[in-house]
Amino acid sequence: MLAARYVSARTVEVGPADTAPPAAGQVQVAPAFTGVCGTDLHIFHGDMDQRVSRPAVIGHEVSAVVAAVGEGVEGWAVGDRVTVMPLAWDGTCPACLAGNQHVCQHLDFIGIDSPGGLQQRWNVPASTLVRLPDGLSLRDAALVEPTAVAVHDVGRAGVQAGETVVVVGAGPVGLLIALVATSTGADVRVVELDAHRRSVAAGLGLQTLDPREQDVVAAVEEWTGGAGAAVAFEVSGAAGGVTTAVDVLGVRGRLCLVAIHPTPREVNLHRFFWRELTLIGARLYERSDFERAVELVASGAVPADTVISRVVPLAQAADAFAALEGGAGVVKVLVDCREDTGAPRG
Amino acid sequence: MLAARYVSARTVEVGPADTAPPAAGQVQVAPAFTGVCGTDLHIFHGDMDQRVSRPAVIGHEVSAVVAAVGEGVEGWAVGDRVTVMPLAWDGTCPACLAGNQHVCQHLDFIGIDSPGGLQQRWNVPASTLVRLPDGLSLRDAALVEPTAVAVHDVGRAGVQAGETVVVVGAGPVGLLIALVATSTGADVRVVELDAHRRSVAAGLGLQTLDPREQDVVAAVEEWTGGAGAAVAFEVSGAAGGVTTAVDVLGVRGRLCLVAIHPTPREVNLHRFFWRELTLIGARLYERSDFERAVELVASGAVPADTVISRVVPLAQAADAFAALEGGAGVVKVLVDCREDTGAPRG
Repeated sequence: MLAARYVSARTVEVGPADTAPPAAGQVQVAPAFTGVCGTDLHIFHGDMDQRVSRPAVIGHEVSAVVAAVGEGVEGWAVGDRVTVMPLAWDGTCPACLAGNQHVCQHLDFIGIDSPGGLQQRWNVPASTLVRLPDGLSLRDAALVEPTAVAVHDVGRAGVQAGETVVVVGAGPVGLLIALVATSTGADVRVVELDAHRRSVAAGLGLQTLDPREQDVVAAVEEWTGGAGAAVAFEVSGAAGGVTTAVDVLGVRGRLCLVAIHPTPREVNLHRFFWRELTLIGARLYERSDFERAVELVASGAVPADTVISRVVPLAQAADAFAALEGGAGVVKVLVDCREDTGAPRG
Repeated sequence: MLAARYVSARTVEVGPADTAPPAAGQVQVAPAFTGVCGTDLHIFHGDMDQRVSRPAVIGHEVSAVVAAVGEGVEGWAVGDRVTVMPLAWDGTCPACLAGNQHVCQHLDFIGIDSPGGLQQRWNVPASTLVRLPDGLSLRDAALVEPTAVAVHDVGRAGVQAGETVVVVGAGPVGLLIALVATSTGADVRVVELDAHRRSVAAGLGLQTLDPREQDVVAAVEEWTGGAGAAVAFEVSGAAGGVTTAVDVLGVRGRLCLVAIHPTPREVNLHRFFWRELTLIGARLYERSDFERAVELVASGAVPADTVISRVVPLAQAADAFAALEGGAGVVKVLVDCREDTGAPRG
């Protein structure tokens, strides 16, 4: 079988790899499509070399077919179509004991902390598998993991039908949040500096605001009749994005913090006090988020044909990283990991 | 009658003042005891001259006796013992319409934005009055307003019995939060740099941590068995207090922001993401908080004899500000506004 390996900054090599049978409690899957996300790009850039053991098979947005079942595993059979919720927790830390396993204090994020899905055979804990419905193609199912992130974020923010929502940043996660919030019945505006990304958002039926062309806070004030937005999502990762997300919120507004900010940011805490705002950190997803994401992708609420910009074969996996880097118009790039791409199984 | 007036930075003058009968919908009260709080001290320092119309009768922590009842007011009679919830809202802004009148977008904070209780006759909207139970003295009832702040903060944070709570900053509000959280059944630690304030906290039965003597984050880790605290209150107003309050929290921990931070603060947003923390702004109080505060002061859960450091007569109102400035061991200073202090009415 083939595997794509991150070797060092800006270098991904594809070559043959050995397979081991699944251990007890594991299932061996044959990845079909593996999406490449922003975190993968950080790894590709060498920014996470302290965390990633190289050479590393990365990738955690995976649709797959069960290829073998390990000892003691029940409920799964060869040929089952699945996606993988790539989390393994210790079950014993205070976070796990409090029921927050997805933010386990010793979490193994499979595909970052341990081998991922950019290969043709992948052994994963049986507990990570999520079954795909018949109507959902393997290609589209590679969108389930990032959609689960968005479902989790929208859930953490408690978005209700009819609420006004501002999404700051129209990268893939921002777009998915906007789509999921829209499917919840919220009235959504997407703030994005980049014209290509705004056009992609518009192509998904989303309304956009351009901070270079208009005063976003004034526009939101007008749109909301002076109330300010009920919810904002910070998905830009930029200092200015934090400021915008705080400034657009009305009294008792909720700011869901999705993006990773590696360094501390200046936050207008006075406004949090004055308007009784809430800031809610959101990371990853829980199983219920994954199951809801399967439904949303299957139903077309996430329009896969628009979100998936490009599919490259595993042998050219490095091209997926290059495409993500290069094109602002690119949303989601998938790697086709199937051994026989001429015989669609999805 | 006499009134104390803030004239200019560091100058409070006491002198005769005219009284007007209460207008329709108003009640005229005779303030008994008026507490001086940190915001009053800011005004005294001249820091709020842009907001306060001078000369200003300030003061908003008031116990009083009804002296006259305006036209159309029902339910109140001369001699009724009351405290005053010093908020007047417009009832028409988006915050009011959403049920958040206490953070009305055009709020009149009585005692700051309009005349307050450092005088012997005070006309207030009848809607602001809260009745005192028989067992609660007028002196102790001056603690109801700051206690209502603490009740609101503890409620916003959703503190539950058995939870671990860290209060950063042991000024009057921090101490009251610690007492209210303790009365809720929480296990509380108070972080305070100042030795006098720590000794006051200890005198109230609270456990304290000294950041100069110990690593507070490590101490909380050990205390909570590696989990981190469930709740932190930032009541210090200092940049370092924000950092401490963030760093002590466990997974899904809630940080209730109580203090006023006039300038933006650097916040470790990565930790909010990583541990799914929540930051909750809290301002003022709602009527239910005021009613609960009456119960807590009346029950002794807030030990008034320890919290009230000093009482000065209205004629020496300026001394109250000086006492607050000078002594770190001082918690709450009251001004006795009664016309005949020889005849206790409380």
